[in-house]
Amino acid sequence: MKVCIIGCTGHAYYTINGLKTRGSGELAGIAPGSPGETIGPLARLAANSGHNPIEYGDYREMLDREKPDIAVVACHFGDHAKVAAEALHLGCHVFVEKPAATTFADLERLKEAYARSGKRLSAMLAYRYIPAFEAAKAAVDRGAIGRIRLLQAQKSYRLNERGAPYRSRVTYGGTIPWVGSHAIDWLYWFSRERFASVYAAHSSEHNRGHGELELTAQCLFVMTGDVFGTVSIDYLRPDGASAASDDRLRIVGTKGTIEIGPRGVLADFGDGEGERPLPLAPRRDMFAEFMDHIANPEAPYSISAEDSFYVTEACLRARQAADDRVLIPF
Amino acid sequence: MKVCIIGCTGHAYYTINGLKTRGSGELAGIAPGSPGETIGPLARLAANSGHNPIEYGDYREMLDREKPDIAVVACHFGDHAKVAAEALHLGCHVFVEKPAATTFADLERLKEAYARSGKRLSAMLAYRYIPAFEAAKAAVDRGAIGRIRLLQAQKSYRLNERGAPYRSRVTYGGTIPWVGSHAIDWLYWFSRERFASVYAAHSSEHNRGHGELELTAQCLFVMTGDVFGTVSIDYLRPDGASAASDDRLRIVGTKGTIEIGPRGVLADFGDGEGERPLPLAPRRDMFAEFMDHIANPEAPYSISAEDSFYVTEACLRARQAADDRVLIPF
Repeated sequence: MKVCIIGCTGHAYYTINGLKTRGSGELAGIAPGSPGETIGPLARLAANSGHNPIEYGDYREMLDREKPDIAVVACHFGDHAKVAAEALHLGCHVFVEKPAATTFADLERLKEAYARSGKRLSAMLAYRYIPAFEAAKAAVDRGAIGRIRLLQAQKSYRLNERGAPYRSRVTYGGTIPWVGSHAIDWLYWFSRERFASVYAAHSSEHNRGHGELELTAQCLFVMTGDVFGTVSIDYLRPDGASAASDDRLRIVGTKGTIEIGPRGVLADFGDGEGERPLPLAPRRDMFAEFMDHIANPEAPYSISAEDSFYVTEACLRARQAADDRVLIPF
Repeated sequence: MKVCIIGCTGHAYYTINGLKTRGSGELAGIAPGSPGETIGPLARLAANSGHNPIEYGDYREMLDREKPDIAVVACHFGDHAKVAAEALHLGCHVFVEKPAATTFADLERLKEAYARSGKRLSAMLAYRYIPAFEAAKAAVDRGAIGRIRLLQAQKSYRLNERGAPYRSRVTYGGTIPWVGSHAIDWLYWFSRERFASVYAAHSSEHNRGHGELELTAQCLFVMTGDVFGTVSIDYLRPDGASAASDDRLRIVGTKGTIEIGPRGVLADFGDGEGERPLPLAPRRDMFAEFMDHIANPEAPYSISAEDSFYVTEACLRARQAADDRVLIPF
């Protein structure tokens, strides 16, 4: 299976890891996806992992010549949709960094390109492949906490010093789509409800010179069945903090609760036994499974194109709610 | 100092504890405050603590005869405002269960009664006297985490089997005012900002036959200075859970974070030392300090009448947002 990577702003390394995990597949080419994007770090990462991809200056030329099975899109976030649509048009399956689009118009164009293509697409909703989250998901799906009524999600990042693409809405897309998309996906993936409305707020105050980057954001989603979910996002994790990200999720059901956070995965199944750690799920590799799924559509894969688009839409509606400070229906 | 207690639906025992802590003050009388309210448990608690209050059938008669310095109001929540206003009118200082009112009209009448009375009033915003919260407050106030940008608050209770007063909006007032008032107070007390708007949702689905009682609720408050706060409330804490309440607060500032929860009080001051436990503040007794403050207005007391009213208003606006599913400005 032939793979090309476009851009190295997002998590292009998922691809390298997946190729290594599967021990098959060829990284044929790499190219920048956005104006001014340098792919030196990606070239080094590829070389260190035993790959020898051709470096192209133009990703269209690369796709045209290499005709890869899979195009990985990880350029500036504002270019995800356009590049992914072109890759679909050129006959590639697409593995694209989240959010899949940063404007409603781009999302519509991407969905149309996908519908016309007959190809497969997945956004990098990587938490669906993180053992703690998979373990929680399995417990929820087997009904261990009853019916979900409430979710509380948190993403907290260190700000560090972020480059120019993060500082402009056009290239960055906003903190709710970039950081929040995972948390918004949790609400949807765990509850299996649809989004009904969202109110949100965000602010770029105190962002230490990072232009339009929103340092803080909070969202309240009402979902079908009167299920509610909050998402709290910040870039205020102290620099000395032990891990880069402080991800938390509390899922409250009619029978019990599950939470993921600094104490691991803890479940109370309402059976009188109290809180207990939930064993982690075995580690599965997202990109390796995507390759398997391309090779054999019967092979399981956890992130559908429909979910990729729907979560993107939810991010954009939340961002709109925060921009305009209005309640947005779905 | 002479004290009378009206009702025993709320936390009337704060009063008994306070009298014991201070070792002075007399519990002169007790009476029900709402139709059908029984005060047997309160009479037993008083007797067990060495008090011998006269039991009245009518609290107005009690206040008229006993002329207490302080009337404690802890009847059905929907009657708080009316009874508190009468007590002020009859010349008592008032220590009232939160929320101080369950309708906007009642809140206005209570504020007017307070303004006319020249007496003092405090709602039982008891977390301002809980050592973990006091420790966090002191750290925030000395600037240890910089400027607050974001707060996430949680109240999670066991439902158990709750009596009739909890099952009707008229007597209960709603879960956002009853359970949420503490969390809403945290946003205000810690941030020292004003509320600008609130969106909220609540639902009585799956409430195991508890009538109108909302089992779940979430609120998103935008405050002045673009400070944001979520409040998540549920009655879904499993029956076997180790403590009745699972209270959590995460406060995110420009320099660091403080959180209160199952791991205690943890602070990261952004000094490179990472997360550390914050020593608890010495325990102070809320009602004892209220008595001290009545005796001497110069004596410190943490809950002003203005704060009691403002937090009540915030609760009612959040409940309105949830009832109507609209964004409510302040």
